[in-house]
Amino acid sequence: MIIAIKRGASSEEVKEFSANLEKKGVKIHLSEGAIQTIIGLVGDTTGIDAEALQAHHLVEKVIRVQEPYKRANRLFHPEDSRLDIALEAGGVQSIGGGKLGIIAGPCSVETREQIVEVAVAVKKAGAGFLRGGVFKPRTSPYSFQGLGFEGLDLLLEAKKASGLPIVTELMAIHQLELFDPVDIIQIGARNMQNFTLLKELGHCRKPILLKRGYACTVTELLMAAEYIMAGGNDRIILCERGIRTYDTYTRNTLDLAAIPFLKKQSHLPVIVDPSHGTGFSWMVPAMAKAAIAAGADGLIIEVHNNPEKALCDGEQSITPAAFAELMEVLRKYAAIEGKTI
Amino acid sequence: MIIAIKRGASSEEVKEFSANLEKKGVKIHLSEGAIQTIIGLVGDTTGIDAEALQAHHLVEKVIRVQEPYKRANRLFHPEDSRLDIALEAGGVQSIGGGKLGIIAGPCSVETREQIVEVAVAVKKAGAGFLRGGVFKPRTSPYSFQGLGFEGLDLLLEAKKASGLPIVTELMAIHQLELFDPVDIIQIGARNMQNFTLLKELGHCRKPILLKRGYACTVTELLMAAEYIMAGGNDRIILCERGIRTYDTYTRNTLDLAAIPFLKKQSHLPVIVDPSHGTGFSWMVPAMAKAAIAAGADGLIIEVHNNPEKALCDGEQSITPAAFAELMEVLRKYAAIEGKTI
Amino acid sequence: MIIAIKRGASSEEVKEFSANLEKKGVKIHLSEGAIQTIIGLVGDTTGIDAEALQAHHLVEKVIRVQEPYKRANRLFHPEDSRLDIALEAGGVQSIGGGKLGIIAGPCSVETREQIVEVAVAVKKAGAGFLRGGVFKPRTSPYSFQGLGFEGLDLLLEAKKASGLPIVTELMAIHQLELFDPVDIIQIGARNMQNFTLLKELGHCRKPILLKRGYACTVTELLMAAEYIMAGGNDRIILCERGIRTYDTYTRNTLDLAAIPFLKKQSHLPVIVDPSHGTGFSWMVPAMAKAAIAAGADGLIIEVHNNPEKALCDGEQSITPAAFAELMEVLRKYAAIEGKTI
Amino acid sequence: MIIAIKRGASSEEVKEFSANLEKKGVKIHLSEGAIQTIIGLVGDTTGIDAEALQAHHLVEKVIRVQEPYKRANRLFHPEDSRLDIALEAGGVQSIGGGKLGIIAGPCSVETREQIVEVAVAVKKAGAGFLRGGVFKPRTSPYSFQGLGFEGLDLLLEAKKASGLPIVTELMAIHQLELFDPVDIIQIGARNMQNFTLLKELGHCRKPILLKRGYACTVTELLMAAEYIMAGGNDRIILCERGIRTYDTYTRNTLDLAAIPFLKKQSHLPVIVDPSHGTGFSWMVPAMAKAAIAAGADGLIIEVHNNPEKALCDGEQSITPAAFAELMEVLRKYAAIEGKTI
Repeated sequence: MIIAIKRGASSEEVKEFSANLEKKGVKIHLSEGAIQTIIGLVGDTTGIDAEALQAHHLVEKVIRVQEPYKRANRLFHPEDSRLDIALEAGGVQSIGGGKLGIIAGPCSVETREQIVEVAVAVKKAGAGFLRGGVFKPRTSPYSFQGLGFEGLDLLLEAKKASGLPIVTELMAIHQLELFDPVDIIQIGARNMQNFTLLKELGHCRKPILLKRGYACTVTELLMAAEYIMAGGNDRIILCERGIRTYDTYTRNTLDLAAIPFLKKQSHLPVIVDPSHGTGFSWMVPAMAKAAIAAGADGLIIEVHNNPEKALCDGEQSITPAAFAELMEVLRKYAAIEGKTI
Repeated sequence: MIIAIKRGASSEEVKEFSANLEKKGVKIHLSEGAIQTIIGLVGDTTGIDAEALQAHHLVEKVIRVQEPYKRANRLFHPEDSRLDIALEAGGVQSIGGGKLGIIAGPCSVETREQIVEVAVAVKKAGAGFLRGGVFKPRTSPYSFQGLGFEGLDLLLEAKKASGLPIVTELMAIHQLELFDPVDIIQIGARNMQNFTLLKELGHCRKPILLKRGYACTVTELLMAAEYIMAGGNDRIILCERGIRTYDTYTRNTLDLAAIPFLKKQSHLPVIVDPSHGTGFSWMVPAMAKAAIAAGADGLIIEVHNNPEKALCDGEQSITPAAFAELMEVLRKYAAIEGKTI
Repeated sequence: MIIAIKRGASSEEVKEFSANLEKKGVKIHLSEGAIQTIIGLVGDTTGIDAEALQAHHLVEKVIRVQEPYKRANRLFHPEDSRLDIALEAGGVQSIGGGKLGIIAGPCSVETREQIVEVAVAVKKAGAGFLRGGVFKPRTSPYSFQGLGFEGLDLLLEAKKASGLPIVTELMAIHQLELFDPVDIIQIGARNMQNFTLLKELGHCRKPILLKRGYACTVTELLMAAEYIMAGGNDRIILCERGIRTYDTYTRNTLDLAAIPFLKKQSHLPVIVDPSHGTGFSWMVPAMAKAAIAAGADGLIIEVHNNPEKALCDGEQSITPAAFAELMEVLRKYAAIEGKTI
Repeated sequence: MIIAIKRGASSEEVKEFSANLEKKGVKIHLSEGAIQTIIGLVGDTTGIDAEALQAHHLVEKVIRVQEPYKRANRLFHPEDSRLDIALEAGGVQSIGGGKLGIIAGPCSVETREQIVEVAVAVKKAGAGFLRGGVFKPRTSPYSFQGLGFEGLDLLLEAKKASGLPIVTELMAIHQLELFDPVDIIQIGARNMQNFTLLKELGHCRKPILLKRGYACTVTELLMAAEYIMAGGNDRIILCERGIRTYDTYTRNTLDLAAIPFLKKQSHLPVIVDPSHGTGFSWMVPAMAKAAIAAGADGLIIEVHNNPEKALCDGEQSITPAAFAELMEVLRKYAAIEGKTI
């Protein structure tokens, strides 16, 4: 961290200010120039509050050189993290480290027939995981809110029928106790900065699929992961799912540059949600391919056996047939990138 | 709600589709033209999921005419809502309906001396409410997270010393049981779409200060209020506190047009946070005045007795002296608008 | 400007790099620390290209301390600039330095009757300037593009009839020769970064009303002014007219914090366009008042004698009667701020 | 176009309003319901100003069903447009219709050695076109503004030496007369809505590379193309180059979903600029691959023989060696998509 001091500050003031900083456990490198005085902070500055410093009357500017995240930082963990999920039938299903994780399934679990049919179909097409929402964050209190724990039972039946590990969204910490048979807990975009929830997730040992908030920076996404990791849980998958911008021709603006950025800054696996990222089923294949080409470690795709009758997000769901076709092409892309599905 | 049907749809298909819609409790007005067929939905359409409809193969476009909120809608509640808080010393302190509510205090409760000193000072200057955070949503897990319930005790001492009703942020539902002596519960921007929390707040009878999410639309803010109101709690204050845009010279972009819009669409009181809305103490007076001029029902302003040593948000906090000076000017603005502080 | 050097750079490399920087006319203050080496650049750094420096393999980060604008900078011109327009009938009409400039008139000049009627009406209500577009930047080539020079003749008739100086938009440099009788040349949001045009405007001596691009930062606005001023023309009025954000309930998001920011950073007058800034006539009074309360030096407001039949932007135009009523209130706000209309 | 009429409007008013609309050359389909009256406009509505209609007191909402562009619309031109550039040595170089156009070269032409060396190198690696700026739109008047026509001479030498057709940016219409030997005229993001310039370009017969404005919608990009096409010039390439959003970890947010959208709505070729789209050379390969995977018809990539000494945009320029390596991979991606470079 570098602090540029305002002109006119006295040498005594600067020394007192520096001494106070040193008490926070960092080393100070003071450079008093004729015109510009600069203080360099060396050591672990993640605990130094740059915003608070900025309020000090001596301070002109505060510049972070070091990233504010540690456990999520590739600097301290150079190899890719790979998430392994043990399968009930034996073996593991992995995401990261050269293995593409493809998560597929409907936005919401609706009926036993629906979820089992979709599960079996996506498994056949090569998906590695089944998704299905049972608690749904909806903008309107009058919209379908998901089947709740009843839906979770149906999802477990589909897990059994297909052999696929399951991914579903948790919306509140009290739901956690019944999430034991869930293989990967999804934290949705609207809860990415629910810090109380993140802290609690740090204490569990479940893999977390952490979706980027729709108006959060990539650094904030890494800080959300850091909240969980600081609690001791480092089994995290990051997910780019589109951000909110001025253009509304897509539901969100899928920010694929986040993939190379997150992969460079962090060792955590990064996947992409082209369904929410665009909002239109016809765009899903193009953006799924683009995500793999940009280096993603996997995808989460909405697949519904009857999109027109879906209770939620039908417009962005593809059919099992379209999914199977897409998987064929994705295997070719994966091969170029030296990865396997 | 108006549904434009795709060209080429057969009359039978359209009739079947219309019949299905009618089962959802709305009346159908079908207009089959030579070139464009249109279905009008009449009645309460708040329960109809426009997004789901959009996925149907017959549908070209879905257009909402009716607003998706009911209880927050001024249409069904033409008079301004006024929130009255009973004072321990007797009498009430109000927000809305011609009465400006000025909430002032530090970002975080830090020490007994700090919070009591600020409370007494802002009360003397004319503030109607004391704010002070004890649970702080911070981007980094390594930043100061607030004093927790210990801070709440200090805040209650300041309430006693100053006679001001208190406002503080709730971050998780389990904190609610200890919030009994809190007069107004603040829901922060990052929790505006924490729907599980909103539902629970609908079951309590505490006034809620609901801050707009930093990337939420004004309609989403009203829908968040609707979540709480649908549960039976209509004691809500809406708060504009700045949104995230491409320009970063201010911490957020304060969207003051939200005031006339929210006042037109809803009967709920609307206040403004010029501290978070700009991030700089020197901008707070200009934007506080602008908010009142634009029709706000009140303000929430960060005041700290020593901004340079604040543990949080010092850069945007004004001193008690600056606050007192601002209040003098605000009274003149209020008078023009026919309001009192 | 401060340059943080990457770790591992050799002392020789840094010295050679510093020597090259010195050749660009700045003084170098080199601070080699055990862990972090920093180079401070002192002097006029406006000609140093921070982006180009960032590409150098030795550079970790480049931080501007000095603002990149000089002539627009209040640092070098502490007093407010006031723009005086000589009136044909004698006397001057001013904007800035305690004098509010109110510019009113239709989006487009349509007919002699329309523009003369509006001109006389807004003059009577107290406007200081008449606006009216003759060249219109329209998103569609099939929309009304303005009356062109024929419209300019009508505008001049209205100038004569009302005695008001006129403001109209210039879209291309070849139009300049016929703009001699125009008192203030407006440069629209879409041309704010038409650098070729800005350079040419630097060579004329007409006052320029420079509107902020709808996705430009406030610093970019000041740099656009700097382009004109670098050519020798310092008669500039800055205009905030709303920016593009994710929320579309208003046509643009009016960024009123730009007023205190621009007034602090620059000596140039700053006005606000609440008509384009909101897109709705019913919001114009609230935002006009807010702009004055936030410290604006004036307003540009669309007034049309028959908004429903306006060929352009009728939805955001107020009637002459509404304008007169607004002016009454604005005088009260101006008085509080110690300004006159 | 569909117009929802406000409740309470009298039948006579609606009929008069309809009759006036009919005079604009469209057919009216009036549907008067008990509760909601709707007017459908049938025929060519591109000349109807939806914004102006919205101001009418009878109008509740105006909804466009038809797209506002005609000549750029795939509806009226179902096959892909392919742009063929005749080579001086004979033969053609194409973009679109299964042929990927790869444009490479430095941000700015700097010296004869630089531009010739880069030209020969990118040609060898398989580029189809050479780019190089001679007029540079720079935010600061004090930054390097390009070599001007002197630079154009150097670019022409590089064209001769390499045999590559050249692409360079035009900033003002008076430059056009000297652009005769230029093969493709680039219109930069800041001029995408310089409507006067677009109209003039409609009268020339040069191919136009039209870059999306950094805060323009995809529909506005198509309308800018429509401006040129309305003048008779349909040799246009659309270019996605990143948009401005709240996250600044990249220079711009590359919106790759624009590719499938533009390809669906329009017959024009669509290319991508991963250099400006990210601002970092190390991200260019990932995003170049993603663009091809998403269906782009080509790329424009900044290549510099010495990025660290580049006078402009060095940080985002890749070396000729990196470019050659990237081309190898791109050929594999092109093959999957059934395209050739």
